Amino acid sequence: MPLTRRSLAKTAALAALAPRPSHAEPAGPGIWRFRFGTPEKITPTSTRRYPPDQAGMAALPSVAACPVTPEAIGATQRGFQLRISLEANELIYGFGLQFQAFQQRGMKRKLRVNADPEVNTGDSHAPVPFYVTTRGYGVLIDTARYAVVYAGNKGRKGDTRRAVGRDVDRNTEPSEVVVEIPSAQGVDVYVFGGPSLREAVQRYNLFSGGGALPPRWGLGFWYRCHLDFTQAEVGRMARDLRSARIPCDVLGLEPAWQTKAYSCSFVWNNQKFPDPSAMIEQLGGDHYQLNLWEHAFTNPASPIHKPLEPHSGDYLVWDGLVPDFLQPEARRIFGAFHDKEHVSRGISGYKLDECDNSDFTRNWSFPELTRFPSGADGEQMHSLFGLRYQDTIQGVFDSHNRPTYGLVRNSGALAAPYPYVLYSDLYNHREFVRGLVNSGFSGLLWCPEVRDAKDPEDLIRRLQTVVFSPLAMVNAWYIRNPPWKQVQQKTNNAGQFEPGWEKVEATCREMIEWRMRLLPYIHAAFVQYHRTGLPPFRALVMDWPADTHTHNVDDQWIMGDSLLVAPIISGDKDRKVYLPPVDWHDLYTGKVLNGGRTVTISPPLERIPVFVKAGTLLPLAEPTLHTADEGGYKLEVRAYGPNPQPTTLYDGDTPVEIAWQSAPRSRYEVLRWVEPGT
Amino acid sequence: MPLTRRSLAKTAALAALAPRPSHAEPAGPGIWRFRFGTPEKITPTSTRRYPPDQAGMAALPSVAACPVTPEAIGATQRGFQLRISLEANELIYGFGLQFQAFQQRGMKRKLRVNADPEVNTGDSHAPVPFYVTTRGYGVLIDTARYAVVYAGNKGRKGDTRRAVGRDVDRNTEPSEVVVEIPSAQGVDVYVFGGPSLREAVQRYNLFSGGGALPPRWGLGFWYRCHLDFTQAEVGRMARDLRSARIPCDVLGLEPAWQTKAYSCSFVWNNQKFPDPSAMIEQLGGDHYQLNLWEHAFTNPASPIHKPLEPHSGDYLVWDGLVPDFLQPEARRIFGAFHDKEHVSRGISGYKLDECDNSDFTRNWSFPELTRFPSGADGEQMHSLFGLRYQDTIQGVFDSHNRPTYGLVRNSGALAAPYPYVLYSDLYNHREFVRGLVNSGFSGLLWCPEVRDAKDPEDLIRRLQTVVFSPLAMVNAWYIRNPPWKQVQQKTNNAGQFEPGWEKVEATCREMIEWRMRLLPYIHAAFVQYHRTGLPPFRALVMDWPADTHTHNVDDQWIMGDSLLVAPIISGDKDRKVYLPPVDWHDLYTGKVLNGGRTVTISPPLERIPVFVKAGTLLPLAEPTLHTADEGGYKLEVRAYGPNPQPTTLYDGDTPVEIAWQSAPRSRYEVLRWVEPGT
Repeated sequence: MPLTRRSLAKTAALAALAPRPSHAEPAGPGIWRFRFGTPEKITPTSTRRYPPDQAGMAALPSVAACPVTPEAIGATQRGFQLRISLEANELIYGFGLQFQAFQQRGMKRKLRVNADPEVNTGDSHAPVPFYVTTRGYGVLIDTARYAVVYAGNKGRKGDTRRAVGRDVDRNTEPSEVVVEIPSAQGVDVYVFGGPSLREAVQRYNLFSGGGALPPRWGLGFWYRCHLDFTQAEVGRMARDLRSARIPCDVLGLEPAWQTKAYSCSFVWNNQKFPDPSAMIEQLGGDHYQLNLWEHAFTNPASPIHKPLEPHSGDYLVWDGLVPDFLQPEARRIFGAFHDKEHVSRGISGYKLDECDNSDFTRNWSFPELTRFPSGADGEQMHSLFGLRYQDTIQGVFDSHNRPTYGLVRNSGALAAPYPYVLYSDLYNHREFVRGLVNSGFSGLLWCPEVRDAKDPEDLIRRLQTVVFSPLAMVNAWYIRNPPWKQVQQKTNNAGQFEPGWEKVEATCREMIEWRMRLLPYIHAAFVQYHRTGLPPFRALVMDWPADTHTHNVDDQWIMGDSLLVAPIISGDKDRKVYLPPVDWHDLYTGKVLNGGRTVTISPPLERIPVFVKAGTLLPLAEPTLHTADEGGYKLEVRAYGPNPQPTTLYDGDTPVEIAWQSAPRSRYEVLRWVEPGT
Repeated sequence: MPLTRRSLAKTAALAALAPRPSHAEPAGPGIWRFRFGTPEKITPTSTRRYPPDQAGMAALPSVAACPVTPEAIGATQRGFQLRISLEANELIYGFGLQFQAFQQRGMKRKLRVNADPEVNTGDSHAPVPFYVTTRGYGVLIDTARYAVVYAGNKGRKGDTRRAVGRDVDRNTEPSEVVVEIPSAQGVDVYVFGGPSLREAVQRYNLFSGGGALPPRWGLGFWYRCHLDFTQAEVGRMARDLRSARIPCDVLGLEPAWQTKAYSCSFVWNNQKFPDPSAMIEQLGGDHYQLNLWEHAFTNPASPIHKPLEPHSGDYLVWDGLVPDFLQPEARRIFGAFHDKEHVSRGISGYKLDECDNSDFTRNWSFPELTRFPSGADGEQMHSLFGLRYQDTIQGVFDSHNRPTYGLVRNSGALAAPYPYVLYSDLYNHREFVRGLVNSGFSGLLWCPEVRDAKDPEDLIRRLQTVVFSPLAMVNAWYIRNPPWKQVQQKTNNAGQFEPGWEKVEATCREMIEWRMRLLPYIHAAFVQYHRTGLPPFRALVMDWPADTHTHNVDDQWIMGDSLLVAPIISGDKDRKVYLPPVDWHDLYTGKVLNGGRTVTISPPLERIPVFVKAGTLLPLAEPTLHTADEGGYKLEVRAYGPNPQPTTLYDGDTPVEIAWQSAPRSRYEVLRWVEPGT
């Protein structure tokens, strides 16, 4: 074998194996930073928009000592390597929007931006180099590289702690997380104390700047119109939804509102939309917000193409420029045009599409070797692109001091403050549920959007899930009529409605009305997210980290303080639900169920299983058609179980604490006090 | 934004964009090497076992000038980048065992070793950094890294040659292949001249050392036994196959023949196999070869564990050592034990399992950051592991001057000389067919093995495909009885046979008999592979590169000189077949079909569509039960069409040319001369 200098290489390899000392620097209350080698210049923290929420972090329980000490393995020509110890039975969650796996210990995660994450490799629309463990801490690897994380259980030669064999349960052995950051010669690692996993997540979200607080209308119901709709057809859909008494706050337009869409001109197509301002005003008068689809790749026909050219990468996407959103000038040019053409006219927000990386499957995105004027390469830009795109748009709304709520297909580390919800072209309901449960570990919001369905049962089950998610939306971009009239695309577009569709519509209406009834409750959960970092939608393990029965529950979630949601996938006639060890009440009947056990339930099609923690005072608003209706502040307050605790709602920033049969004078008005099941 | 030194980075990026001059050095007849920067020490060429076949290459058409000139983009901290121009309508094939795509232009290929390549990303059991184009040349990137190849159609800013729009056919524009080699600061690129794509592949295979020539028994039928079988049960299976008159040359044992299998001890389990030598001798007396499953990960219970320890990587797999097969001492220790325990006892070969990288999905392999004493890291080792494992075993058989033929789950660049056939745990018949068609571009052999089936139709269709492949095998490792008795695993293992199974068995027997009848023809195709580098199984485009109708045909292949195979996937009642522009004859009826067109055929279940090129003299042997039977040299010679050309068979190394009604005296004996259809 013609290798030379073998013994030299061997010596170097062995030297590199020796862990190097590392020192913790305080980086906030209960947060420590470890600096290894020379970190790269472009990272999530170096490009962040929002500063840490110091006050929020200070309000969390204090943590005496850094709970874990990362160690450098060292730098090689491949990049930088480090390890972080794991104890026996210490389990791992996080790494962003993972569809395929929940508990991550034992997995190799390649944190690569990929628009079609169909395989359980770590690829994701929104990979995040952050994890938390059941020992009650979190770890952020501050890198914009496609880091590889071996999340425990890789055996090192000479490790005498390991049992031998294929079927050994490695989770019960001490182990270590091993991280490799390609190309880098150093990295900062942040450790977030707990004391429990829940507070570690809160601390990470507050370090990111605190959770996003959407405007109230953003929490209403959304409907995206067929991409071919004209101004008149959009208006007709707006009227149809009102006359069908389907609640709706936001209508969305898909690509064809522009003169060019692949790549984008960002210019209104006046053939289809002769008077956008009039349309926006008319919709606004009927209490609709309008949301615009786009992506960032800028078509040569766009007025901003020429000014953006020097501030874009050296590769094109669909012949469009890739703006270097790390450059202020690119953000300014892009933002100013969006302001003038859309935001100043009253557009409420955007759906920022295609900003993930489809190159692994559909071959249209910019290469990882792309060079940007900011000095970023394509890999770094892919990891940051979604957030920096959000920044750019955020700047426009901030300049108007207007809130927004939108959709985005890529996000990453430190995303919590961004009022954007992830979505996907994939469409597996079960994976959508897992994505929702996982998103809460990483400061992400996820929309399991409803498009078509294989049958009305599938439609209803999917709608139930999305109603109990951060963004309740039907995305009808390829069907001309609402899916409850006809789930099949072709038949729908031919205007042939399913016999008996009225009953399906009624069921869907009732589900969407639940969204409206729960809106004050969901809004309060988001205020809590904003102030304390507690995710409004989260895995059971986050609230019961010590209960090992929660450790693998990836098909149920907690919404707000008190609701446990356990959706049904179409085709399933029953399901198992794990109830953590308190008492629970059926949302609909008030029937009590003892917790600390798994129950099998078989709810009717019309009802998604939801359980209310005993002692909850649950406020339900009138099911209005939109959030501008004051009915959204008129409440039925339900007491589930004896001695219900007071609950806090918010009118804007102002807290309104409601106790059983005692509500202060405020915009909220309690019409009824109810004790379900008694 | 806290970035600094931005203008510096920008200048550096622009400087790196300027292509650097590159110089071709002759590297063999019609082969040029371009050296860029400082190539890595561990590459496919630096670790090769076989030298180029200079005589074989000299016999190919000469090529006046290097057909394409790669250009360096330059080195970055990410690795090394280069580009290679593409003309309009120039199409690309290769990159190893690709299941998901055939024509590769427009694709991004990440050439990553992955045991579960379910998505069209370039991941493969056997990725190969080699491609050929319809302009008639091949390019080898001499790297053991997971190179990324953008195979054309990525638009660069300022490229005025591009039309604008999403739906433009980019293949009709000039473009370039862009390659990025992670971590490397230089690379050697080899260009292989044609003049056509076919000769470029031949040249690459001869540069690799020439094609593999399996022993004749390797081309017979293989049957792998249930993993729980004892010595007695293996003997019974051997007898049962003979008495059922199912041809079979090789029996395979699965993991449980060893005392430890995950990881491996390589030591016979004497509980199940009390006398391996006697078993091998007895099977040999009945003309069976015995093949052993194993993987390389060495269990602590193995006698070679301790000696291998200093010659293995620093991570374990299933608690077993990962031998550093780049080190002669590791190969020596591993090989010597295999010789003593198996090869010297008469074992004919191995199935080298799990040597690909399952870390992306099943999390058991060694990390890419593993360090080996040779200086290789885990990424390089993954790219080379399969071939260096084959080397190790090859050394044992070479020392006995005995041929072998085996199975392996990872291979890579320069693989042509290795008598090993790839296989997969995946099981999609359509993808298996595409894998077979693609394998011929990259010096690989592929076995679309038959395991279970969803019904007898599926079984028969799969068996038809494997009979016309490099290795005709049923892998019954999880069924105790042959699948033709019962396709369902559970029922099969319960010994419950499908009513009417005898008819299914008869159909299967007839298919396997076709393998035996075609064996002299297939053997001759492999001799040609060995001597001229022409793949015995190859895509139509390799024989008709100028015929654009062949450019996307990925469900038919050429076997040997004259047969076109167009298998049926279960469930399809008919299929389209493209017949290149010569006349063709139905193998079974002799019926003539004009070429240069696509025909639709609906063959009966019993027959896989096979077409014989007009003018072919096709020798068919007696359908013997094994290759040691002299009936395998007794021929019916069929003339398809008028003026059949002579054909050459081989007795060992000795060519035997057979013309119509004129065969020389040799071991071959022509019993019948037949003109089918006349």
